[in-house]
Amino acid sequence: MSDGTTRPADQERATPVDAAEPQRERVRTGGRSERVRHAVARAVLDLLAERVVDFGPSEVAARADLNRKTIYRWWPTFADLIREGLNAHSSGIEVPDTGSWERDLHELAHRLAQFFASPVEVSTNAIIASRRTPELSTLIFEHFEPVQEAWRAVVARGIARGEVHPDCTPEAVINILASPLILTPLTLHRAATRREVDALVDLVLRATRP
Amino acid sequence: MSDGTTRPADQERATPVDAAEPQRERVRTGGRSERVRHAVARAVLDLLAERVVDFGPSEVAARADLNRKTIYRWWPTFADLIREGLNAHSSGIEVPDTGSWERDLHELAHRLAQFFASPVEVSTNAIIASRRTPELSTLIFEHFEPVQEAWRAVVARGIARGEVHPDCTPEAVINILASPLILTPLTLHRAATRREVDALVDLVLRATRP
Repeated sequence: MSDGTTRPADQERATPVDAAEPQRERVRTGGRSERVRHAVARAVLDLLAERVVDFGPSEVAARADLNRKTIYRWWPTFADLIREGLNAHSSGIEVPDTGSWERDLHELAHRLAQFFASPVEVSTNAIIASRRTPELSTLIFEHFEPVQEAWRAVVARGIARGEVHPDCTPEAVINILASPLILTPLTLHRAATRREVDALVDLVLRATRP
Repeated sequence: MSDGTTRPADQERATPVDAAEPQRERVRTGGRSERVRHAVARAVLDLLAERVVDFGPSEVAARADLNRKTIYRWWPTFADLIREGLNAHSSGIEVPDTGSWERDLHELAHRLAQFFASPVEVSTNAIIASRRTPELSTLIFEHFEPVQEAWRAVVARGIARGEVHPDCTPEAVINILASPLILTPLTLHRAATRREVDALVDLVLRATRP
């Protein structure tokens, strides 16, 4: 999410233009309704899923059928748009906390398998691999840092409960769990199967046994 | 490698042209010297590393400073060129067979970490992820099938010696070993570090313990 500190001059420039024309805003003046934020996020994610990597407020406004000035005011930069999209995208992953490492691992693995096979994930991972858009890659990495931290916390809770061997670092465990689930859809163009995910869970359970 | 059965009409067409002009061949008539094959493979791999995905005999001839007709005669199709390049590329990976699962795993992991970080690997994996060149992706998958089989055989030998738990399938073990080593250079643009590879080896050893 943009937080004001990262907003450049574009936002200021939008204001006099707004004032000169009659208001056709779909949001109340001074606010962004949930509906508008959702429409912006959806448009950004659709563009990313189509592997479009160079768009701005105009393209998003057209795609979301929203007033251009609304977008220019609240999401003036590419970074603002990407953050809005990625927040909506990753808010769908629930991180399990059942009190059992085995159940948490099973749940997390199957949810991640689905998540990494989603068109937006496959597309953003391919965009990162293409190395053509360093700014976008950096935005994606920044966004996923706290998300991955929540996954590592599942392992840390397992260690704290004595269910995961303390020599296993959360980083290394999430790395062996997530990497095959990312790579399968990225290279084979299909989600990891239920059987593949279960085999992976079995190996990770053995690997982490105290 | 091309084996005659896959060679289309281009090769036949090349012959009369050859006969009409004085020979400037750099190979003996009727043969491909190791030096020429090596030069062709190098040119193909350099093109792939630069993420060039649509080239033919002419581009390879220019790049390798070889006679165009030599290339058209022996590597008339894109598939022939790619196979020559990939054979040279993967022949560099020695598959360990020390008699010990722990030593084999350690060796294989560190060799794969280097291999997957090579410019050709990073590039071909990004090409596959881009989904833009299905023919090239298929050629790469076909090429790597027997190569991966040799990696899986390392696990199978461990199972046969009773050093790897028989519930572990070679597929699943190679999957958790190779995926992070492929994904790190593909997304983070650096090889997995020695420490990361050692942590991965430790987890795979624990996961496979009888």
